[in-house]
Parts: sequence; C-alpha cells; structure tokens
Amino acid sequence: MNNVFGKKFCITTWGESHGAAIGVVIDGMPANVEVDIDEINQALSKRAPGNSEFTSPRKEKDLVEILSGMFNGKTTGTPISLLIKNCDADSTKYEVIKDKFRPGHADYTYTKKYKNYDYRGGGRASARETASRVAASVFAKKILDPEGVSIKAYLQQVGDICIDYPYSKLNAIDDDPIFCPDPKISKDIQNSLRKIKDAGNSIGGIVSFDCANVPPGLGEPIYNKLEAALANAMLSIPASKGFEIGLGFAAAKLTGKKHNDEMFIQNDKVLYDTNNSGGILGGISTGERIYGRVGFKPASSILQKQNTIDNRGNNTALELPKGSRHDPCVAIRGVKVVEAMCYLVLADFILQI
Amino acid sequence: MNNVFGKKFCITTWGESHGAAIGVVIDGMPANVEVDIDEINQALSKRAPGNSEFTSPRKEKDLVEILSGMFNGKTTGTPISLLIKNCDADSTKYEVIKDKFRPGHADYTYTKKYKNYDYRGGGRASARETASRVAASVFAKKILDPEGVSIKAYLQQVGDICIDYPYSKLNAIDDDPIFCPDPKISKDIQNSLRKIKDAGNSIGGIVSFDCANVPPGLGEPIYNKLEAALANAMLSIPASKGFEIGLGFAAAKLTGKKHNDEMFIQNDKVLYDTNNSGGILGGISTGERIYGRVGFKPASSILQKQNTIDNRGNNTALELPKGSRHDPCVAIRGVKVVEAMCYLVLADFILQI
Amino acid sequence: MNNVFGKKFCITTWGESHGAAIGVVIDGMPANVEVDIDEINQALSKRAPGNSEFTSPRKEKDLVEILSGMFNGKTTGTPISLLIKNCDADSTKYEVIKDKFRPGHADYTYTKKYKNYDYRGGGRASARETASRVAASVFAKKILDPEGVSIKAYLQQVGDICIDYPYSKLNAIDDDPIFCPDPKISKDIQNSLRKIKDAGNSIGGIVSFDCANVPPGLGEPIYNKLEAALANAMLSIPASKGFEIGLGFAAAKLTGKKHNDEMFIQNDKVLYDTNNSGGILGGISTGERIYGRVGFKPASSILQKQNTIDNRGNNTALELPKGSRHDPCVAIRGVKVVEAMCYLVLADFILQI
Amino acid sequence: MNNVFGKKFCITTWGESHGAAIGVVIDGMPANVEVDIDEINQALSKRAPGNSEFTSPRKEKDLVEILSGMFNGKTTGTPISLLIKNCDADSTKYEVIKDKFRPGHADYTYTKKYKNYDYRGGGRASARETASRVAASVFAKKILDPEGVSIKAYLQQVGDICIDYPYSKLNAIDDDPIFCPDPKISKDIQNSLRKIKDAGNSIGGIVSFDCANVPPGLGEPIYNKLEAALANAMLSIPASKGFEIGLGFAAAKLTGKKHNDEMFIQNDKVLYDTNNSGGILGGISTGERIYGRVGFKPASSILQKQNTIDNRGNNTALELPKGSRHDPCVAIRGVKVVEAMCYLVLADFILQI
Repeated sequence: MNNVFGKKFCITTWGESHGAAIGVVIDGMPANVEVDIDEINQALSKRAPGNSEFTSPRKEKDLVEILSGMFNGKTTGTPISLLIKNCDADSTKYEVIKDKFRPGHADYTYTKKYKNYDYRGGGRASARETASRVAASVFAKKILDPEGVSIKAYLQQVGDICIDYPYSKLNAIDDDPIFCPDPKISKDIQNSLRKIKDAGNSIGGIVSFDCANVPPGLGEPIYNKLEAALANAMLSIPASKGFEIGLGFAAAKLTGKKHNDEMFIQNDKVLYDTNNSGGILGGISTGERIYGRVGFKPASSILQKQNTIDNRGNNTALELPKGSRHDPCVAIRGVKVVEAMCYLVLADFILQI
Repeated sequence: MNNVFGKKFCITTWGESHGAAIGVVIDGMPANVEVDIDEINQALSKRAPGNSEFTSPRKEKDLVEILSGMFNGKTTGTPISLLIKNCDADSTKYEVIKDKFRPGHADYTYTKKYKNYDYRGGGRASARETASRVAASVFAKKILDPEGVSIKAYLQQVGDICIDYPYSKLNAIDDDPIFCPDPKISKDIQNSLRKIKDAGNSIGGIVSFDCANVPPGLGEPIYNKLEAALANAMLSIPASKGFEIGLGFAAAKLTGKKHNDEMFIQNDKVLYDTNNSGGILGGISTGERIYGRVGFKPASSILQKQNTIDNRGNNTALELPKGSRHDPCVAIRGVKVVEAMCYLVLADFILQI
Repeated sequence: MNNVFGKKFCITTWGESHGAAIGVVIDGMPANVEVDIDEINQALSKRAPGNSEFTSPRKEKDLVEILSGMFNGKTTGTPISLLIKNCDADSTKYEVIKDKFRPGHADYTYTKKYKNYDYRGGGRASARETASRVAASVFAKKILDPEGVSIKAYLQQVGDICIDYPYSKLNAIDDDPIFCPDPKISKDIQNSLRKIKDAGNSIGGIVSFDCANVPPGLGEPIYNKLEAALANAMLSIPASKGFEIGLGFAAAKLTGKKHNDEMFIQNDKVLYDTNNSGGILGGISTGERIYGRVGFKPASSILQKQNTIDNRGNNTALELPKGSRHDPCVAIRGVKVVEAMCYLVLADFILQI
Repeated sequence: MNNVFGKKFCITTWGESHGAAIGVVIDGMPANVEVDIDEINQALSKRAPGNSEFTSPRKEKDLVEILSGMFNGKTTGTPISLLIKNCDADSTKYEVIKDKFRPGHADYTYTKKYKNYDYRGGGRASARETASRVAASVFAKKILDPEGVSIKAYLQQVGDICIDYPYSKLNAIDDDPIFCPDPKISKDIQNSLRKIKDAGNSIGGIVSFDCANVPPGLGEPIYNKLEAALANAMLSIPASKGFEIGLGFAAAKLTGKKHNDEMFIQNDKVLYDTNNSGGILGGISTGERIYGRVGFKPASSILQKQNTIDNRGNNTALELPKGSRHDPCVAIRGVKVVEAMCYLVLADFILQI
C-alpha cells in the first residue's frame, strides 16, 4: 500500500501527470459533514501551476468531481472519490527527451524499479499528484475546524534570502504571490527568482508550517509520534529533502538549560516560557503551537544543458526544448502541499484518539 | 499499533525503564539464518549507558534472552521474542520528584494523554526502549549483509564543534568513545562535554548516517518513499528534532544546475558526478551512498534548577537530587540508535520487494 | 481502512448503488503486465444483473474506464484506477419506501452507525459494489495465470436442491445460466426459482469454489492463514452467512482416522489419498486443490408484504411497489463474486511471498 | 505481520510449543484499567490441557508473568507483555518421529514454506499458541464489561451428537467438563469420547458462540464487517474448518419471507420477531444476540498407524509411541479459544469506533 496515506483518515491517490485524470479516495471521513465543492476548487487553484510568473505555466483548471460518499451535500461515512481531469497535459514536448534520464528526476530510479517508465511529464512521480492531497485536505480541515485548530504554511527562505524562523505575523500569507508573510522580503525573493528564471535555472527553498490550538495530549507513543508522522508526511512531498520540528537542527548548538521549555501556571492555564520544542514532547502535543520546517531542493527541470545518460547506456546531453515549462522554485507550490499534509496528519491523529 | 515498526520486517517493542524487563518481538525475520546471541549482546553493549564518562552512569549489563523463533542456532521464520531484564533500575531517586513535570520531558504530555504517569525513569518514554531496537537490528543486519549493504553512523556535531558533512573517512568510528571519526575533533568535543557535564548541563548534537552498496531501485513510490521511511524512523528516536537526506536544508541555497547530480557511464557502470541527492530520487535508491543527518536536542535532564509545575497545578521548581544520573549529550548514544534504525528500515524495504 | 482489501495486492473500492459511478483503485499490481479492457468488460458482464430471468432486471452495461496505471497497454506498477458509471440507476422507486427500514437489509444498522442513510438502492451496502471486485480480479488473475493456478466457482445448492460437494466435473459452468455444472440439476433449480420468483419470494443458496494447481507452501502462519483470509474475503460478500474449507462442518462428524489425508510418494511426487482438508494445513497450501463453500441467505428484497418500522419509530408494513426489481437468488451472481475473491486472495498471497 | 491480530486492540503472539516460553504483547489496551493476574491465570486454567480425561494429559501450570504496561495494578496505556513459561514440554517423544510428516498436521506445509521444521510438538503451529490469546482476552473483556457485553461459547456437537442451535440455556457451561450446557447430552458425548479415546482415535466437533448486549451500530462496512472479522478470527484457530453467523448454511434452504427478521417497536425499543441473521446486517450489529458456529476437525494426532512419507522422500508409516499425549476432541478446548476470539474481535471493534 504505497499509495495510501493515513491510518484512520486514509487517502489513496492515483493518476499520472499526463494520463486521463488524477484522483483520490478518502476512506474514513466522518459522516454528516457539509463540504462544498467550491471550497475544494479554491484550494486547488491556490496550489495550481500557472498562478504567477514564478510557477510552471502549465494551466490546469483543476475542477474536481465528487463521485461518491456524499448525499444531499453531506458526507455519508462511505468512501469519497474525487476526480480531477488532466486538461492541459501536453505530452509532445516529452517525446524528444523520452530516452534520456533527466538528472535530479526519478526517471532512472523508476526505470530500475519498474522496468518501464512513463516519460510523459514524470508520470506518477510528478508533483501533479499533490493536487489530490490538497483536495483531500479540505475534508481533513472539516475535522479540525470544530477543534479550533488553525494551520498555516509560508515560504520562509529561498536561496540565501529568508525571514525569521519561526515567524510570528502570519496574517497576509495568501495575498502574497509566493506565500511569504513579509512583503519586503517577498519582493526581494521575487526579484531574485526573476533572475533565476531568466537564466533557465532553479533554486531551493524552505517552507515553514504553524499549527495553532492543537489540544495537548494529541499523538501516540514510540512509533507513531506526531513529529515522526509529520516527518514522514513532509518527506513524501516531491523535492523535499529535510524536516525539522521546533528549533530542529539548531537545537544541536544549545544547552539543555537554554532549550528546555520551562512551565508555569497562570490563571489556571498551563503555559510555557518558550516553545523551543515546537509543541511536541515524547510524540505528544504540549498545547503550544506546533511548528517546523521543510527543506526543498531546487527543481530538477532546468533549461540549461546537462550531462546525462540515455536508456540504451550511452553518455549524452540533455537540453530541454525552448519554451519548456519550468518551475523556478518548487518550494512556492510546496507551501500549499505542506499545509495540506499538516491537515491530513492532524485530522488522522484526531480520529485515532 | 503505536509500538510496532516496519511492514515486512516488523518489530513490536514493549517495556518501561523501571519495569521488570524490556523486549521486542520480531515478526517477519526470514528462516534459516544463523544468529549468534553474542553478536546481539555486543551491539547492546555499544549502545548501553555507562560506557564512557559521557553517558549516563546507569550500568545495564543488557544481556538478551532469545525466547522463541530459533531452533538449532537458526531462525525458523516464526516470531523472535527477545527479552532484556532491567537490572540497574533505581526508582527511589524518582520518588522525590514524582509529582513534578520535568521540563523537556514527556511527563506532562503523557499525563494529559493517559491520565496517569509512570514517573520511574520516564517509563515507556525513556530512551531505554531503544535497546530493543538495537537488539532487533542485529537480525535486520543479517538480511542486509548478503546484499553487501554496509551501514555506519557517527557523531558529526556537538554544540558548535563539527566535522565535515558528509564525512568520508568512516573507518575508526567504533574505536572512538563518542563515535566521532576525526580523532582531533573528538578530543575537542570531549573537552567541551566535560565542562558541560561539570556544569550540570547538557548539549545537543547531530548524528550522520551512511549506507553504502544499497542497490538501485530500492524504495517505494509516493507514500512509502525510502527517505520518508527514514525520516519517520529517525524522528521516532527520543530527543531527535530533525532529519535531512543528502544535502537536506542546505539544498535550499543551491540552484538546480549546482544541485542536480549529473550521470555518466564508465566501464558499463552508471555513475554520478556528485551525490547531492543522498542516494535517493523519487523515493527510490539511485545506487549511490544513502546519507543524511539526524538532529538531537540537548538531554532534558539537567542538574540545574528549573521552574516548572506539579501535578496538582502549582508553580514549583525542580532540582534533581545530587548524584542523579545525567547524560550530557544523548546524541552519543543516539549514534547507535540511528544506525539501528537504518538497519531496520533498509531490511524492511529489501523484504518489501 | 474499511474499504480496502488485501495486503500487497490491495484494492480500495468506492461508490454507491445510485451515485454517479462506482470504482476501485488497485495498489500493488506488478508492472509490465498486459491487460485488455475487453477482458474486464467480459468479466463484468458475467456478474451483471439482467443476464438471465433469475437475476435482477437492472440493466447495467458496466463498461469500465481505466484512468491510470497503464501505459501502452501494460501496467506500469503505479495504482490502477477503474471507473464504472452507473447508468440504469432508477432512484424514484425508492422514494416511496425511503422512511422504512427494510427487513434483512442494512438500512437500520447503517442508520444507527452513520446517523444518515442513502436509501437509493441500498447505497454503499448494495451488491453493486461487487462489480468493482470483479473488475479488479481480472488484474489478480494475471498474477496467477503464470503460476498455472486455475479457479472456478459454481452454484452447488439452492433451497433443498444440490449437487455433490465437492463436485468434480467443472467444465461447463460458464455456459449454464445459473453457473451450475450439472445440467439436470440446473434445470431443477431453474424450475424451482421460477416458482419462487412468481411468488415474489427469494431463496438462499450455496456457492462452492475450487482452486487448482496452487503450489504447496503458500500462506502464512497464525493470523494470516490462507483459510482465514478466504473466510474473511467470503464473509465480506453481501448476503453471505457461512464459510467452510475442505469438508468444513461435516468434519465434525468424522474421526481423525477417517479425516486425516494420508500421504504417499509416487513418481517423485508428493500425493494424498484423500483431500478432506481442502488443500490447506496450518494455514499453508498442501499442493492439493483448495476448495470450500460459501453460504448465501435468500435475498432480503421480496415483493411480499412484511412488518417493519420506520425511521420515526412507528410500526408499519413494507410492500415494494409493483414491478420492483427483485433478485430471486443472490447466490447466482454470488458465484462470480466468490470467484473474484479467490483471485484477489490468492494473488495477494503470491505477492506476499 | 502474520503473528499480529487486531487493528486497535492489537496482539502479537510468539513462542513455540517446546521453546522456553510463549507470550503475547498487547498494543492498544486503554489506560487506567484494573486487571488482576489471578483472573488471567484462571482463564488459562480453563483452556489448559490436562483438565479432564478428554483433553491432552500435558500438564501446564500456565502461570502468567506481566512484564510491562501496568503500574500500581492498573494499565498505563503502554504495551502489555505477558509471558507463560513452558514447563511440561517433553520433546523426547518427538525425536522418534521427527523425520516423518504427520498426516493432518502442518509438518509438511511448514517444511515447504520455511525449509525447516521445529518438530517438537508442532512448534509454532501447535495449539499451545492459543494460550496467549486466552491471556490477552482477559484484557479485552475489561473493555467490553463496562458496555454490558456478555460472551459465552459452548460445545454444540461432537460426532453425531448435538444440542439445538442456537441453544438458549447458557448458564452452566463452565461447570461442565466439556463445556456443554445440556447435562444429559454432555454425558452422551462423554461416553462417546471415552470409546474414541480408547480406540486411539479422535473426533470432530462444533463450538457455538453467543454475544449478548452488543450495542447496535457496531462494525464497519465492506471489508471490515463484523461477521468477516469473526470468520477471520475463528479460522485462525488451529483445526477449525468452518464458520457461520446466524443460521449460516441452513439459510440456503430458506426463503426470504421466512429468513428476514421482521422488526417492531415495543415500549420505545426496537425489537425483532426472529434473529435469523445472528445479530449482524451489512457488517454492522443489529442490537440482537450475535451468535454463530465454528466447526472443528478431529485432532490430527491419533494413536493408530497411518501411512505417510518422510522428509527424505520415502513412503513410510507413522505410529505414535505408546503413551503419547492425545487429545480425543480438540473442539473441547476450542470452546475457550472461540470465546477468547470473540472478546478480542468485539473489543477491537469497540475501540475502532
């Protein structure tokens, strides 16, 4: 079950970048919850390529069809089947490079594993699959909303340009074309991205997530820890290379005296002096904000010429055709996928209780 | 199944720090494999506390008993039950602090979740559970040895002192008291640790792992990616706060042109100019070394006085009794646990094929 | 994951009787296998209602769409999404009875569980879901064909009329309108069914399955025994009420001397005097034919008046409208579903090795 | 995970008939439940061999050790490890027959699968493993007791001698040496068993179970139906050959008019005229008694001479040594195992809600 995610809120995704459609089956959605198809389409449009000058110009309308699991506008408790047709899949561009293994892509590893390769847009390995996750996350959000849980992700770094981590003013993220909450830094990143794009190159980035109002006591011990489930979720996103919770790797430089979050009681509420742990201790939520970061590598598709091999065992060079679609920084769209994975993981843990 | 790890090579661990014993049941070990009990005991002694001046002085002989699954010195294919008695568990020290939630520990979160707490040494949340993982990993190693897979972990950073990452000379790790492959840097770290320890404080660290000779094509797509399984495994280790594969977060600063590993053919072998990806693309091994890092926070138990609350809702202060056991840097013992998790994950994926 | 079946060959079905469509996602199908869409459609047409005078007159063309997982006529190793549109779903007939709990149906139990009910044709609880299983089983068959495994199911009993069990002449099953291999008994059953149907009544039946050429050593111990997996599979079929392997309940009357299958060697082959065990011992195949039976209750939908209650808590009577669709013996269509479940289970175990 | 049973109340059993010990790890037991070790030992003694003249004379004291998961007499929510030492395992008797495949046993199938065989008392395939299930079921019972669920199993048939099914007077089962609720029929069966035993033969039997006060709405749809989970559970018991729920196979002879359980309201309670369905419709409990039957074959070990083959490929004969332990009817001890499986399944479903 390699295409299934979650234990109680369980999604199975299917579909290739250039097949007829992609989709997801949600098994475990509670009954009697109102879900509006427009809300799913809006979430999809936030993640979709072609939204700004900084994402791939592939234009997918990404309109979802709900094929099962709802009756009279409410979920019934049975599996929800969502289908998104592939409309703007142009496979012809891939014909000329179909025998070459693109560096940084999964072309070679899929070929070694499966003894075949769907070269059309990366096939199943394409980030297009993440649209299914975003669609499913709208249902997950409905489980979290009544608990008051609020989730936000944002672009925290691109190349050398970054904002503070963790960042505290998380209001205007969705208004920014690259989901960066600091307008000035956002402009700097955008300027940098234009140069990267013009050079036919790409650049990495870091996405941070922030989950507020998670009740204390959520999570499971030992091999189903909340942070481990988040790590697993984030590393399942294409191009992700790292995960940290709370201060993460920076904690390696600190002493226990400095890192430990001291507790106190005020007005009958349990509070913490600091939240270096990122809201999780021993795999279980503390009641503080759960925050962390996900590192993304630069997109592997670049317009510059690269050395590689072909599937007949020859050394060769790869140069994508002029006008090829090209995503200068996948971390931008990664913001909405990181957010979706937070919804999926937390909803799953709420249901596991 | 929160105490179960793995899909085909599946371990279930049990036991508390100060209970009668801890143990693990391995379900999925192939039949007819010779395993020597001494090899398990040696692996346990490497992880055990009390090995050096830099780990907790708790002295556990950690002798394993094999209760099932073997006949005439070989595995039979049935579940292997391993038991390790707790011999040096001294619970009296914990009596005086049993009503106080220790900052940085899981005392409060476990209490919120379970409405009870086994205060004796952290109970189930104790790092003692990792002895079971190390014991099980000896069996996992037997699955990987015939494939030629070779796994090593090492201490890469403590506080501000670090060696290169990834480090290439991985010969003498086990001879070093803190598992650091550079003798000079090891000495520097040891000197630093002595000061930390004398101050009754602790410090964080980073452990790196390196898996050589992993065949290309290992791993599964989308939600069972090799790097996601490793991330999940590493974040299940107590005190771990971050995971990265390959260049990890540093990839955020690079361009695609720089980060992409170009391929070439030499003497009929597929080779790469660089290995920035860390040996995995699209969730599947490339044939290159699989390497990454795990960040550990400083141990939460320190001898200095800290503010906290008690289980009756009062503000209070915590000061561990003089002579309390105290681990100045849990990343040191983390080395052997990170190594064990690599064995468990890779063996599981070999069997999933 | 209540809509997921299988461990390695894993299907997730979705869809309601009167929704837009039903479908299934297959996760775990091996790569590079040719599958012809016509073969799936033929399998569906065998199971479909409206095939004979003895099944419900609902006419579903049941044409499948393959939305993912195949490229150039072969499977790729990625999930296969199959979709079957609901064409002849006439919900108006159900409007008049929508407030009444139909005796023998899941109306009441679903309402108690989900606090809602999709009254249109039984919703998710409808036998229509089994079309997805039959479609998926065509892929499972492709895994078993190279092993030489041959699977057949047949109608063994209806009411008091039955053929021998196990039956040995399994050639002409598919030519018979009710899948009974004995033409004379088939005629008797058909005559009986006409009377049952004319009376607006229904009747139960027993389906037997027979799996030839299953290699010895297939199956897993203790909690994943081959016979337990088959039992679980068969009891997941709507209207099934019993399962037995080999002589089953009849073994209760026998002595060990009589029941034990003695072994002997002939021409270097391991053979058995008898096959009372039904080809499985200790959860693992013996190499003999795997056979067993599945008991089906009479269809719950009858045209005769019945006492029941409504969803407002009143006693009432239920009388289906004149001309309501009505299946006199669900065991007939059950034959093809039992066969499909054999394919799904055995393919799953082959892949689990 | 072939030695793991359950989804939320999850047991992992381990151990061979003649190893050092057997045991079980329970993962998923709720916290803060009082469990008395004496209650476990009493349950074990009911299942134990050597209880009467009709079970194997192997005398196992079967005293359980609780190694983890409890603190101050209550469960903590962490895994519970139970260990039962093998005291009366006499392997010498098996030396003389160790090269011969015993008819009806798993000797040959295990050898084909694992390429080895632990001939000492059947190894892992021995019914001794069921002691672990009975021990775990005491914990499951603690989950069901507060719900008012009451479970009883009884011997319903041996050879041709049987009591009514379903049987209604279920008071005095535990006082009867063979767990048959009708004293007169019990005597008849006992007389018959004495003859069987004296002849060195064995005989099959049928065990019935009855679960009262199960709330309506328990169970899951499609592939996790309550009846399918019970079928899977029962067919995992050694020597079981069939399962039926409600009228089971007898329903094949009935019409819908006769089989359907009509509903009515009386004093605001939902009631049924009959309970032919056995308390489950569509995989979900109706609120009526859940009852069914499990068919057991005669014990494979008999004292009479049988033809078989040896592990070198020769035809030979098997004659157990004089005085070999010998269970004339495994269905007797099966009663307590069927009961245990009901506890395990229903507790698991309660926790799945």
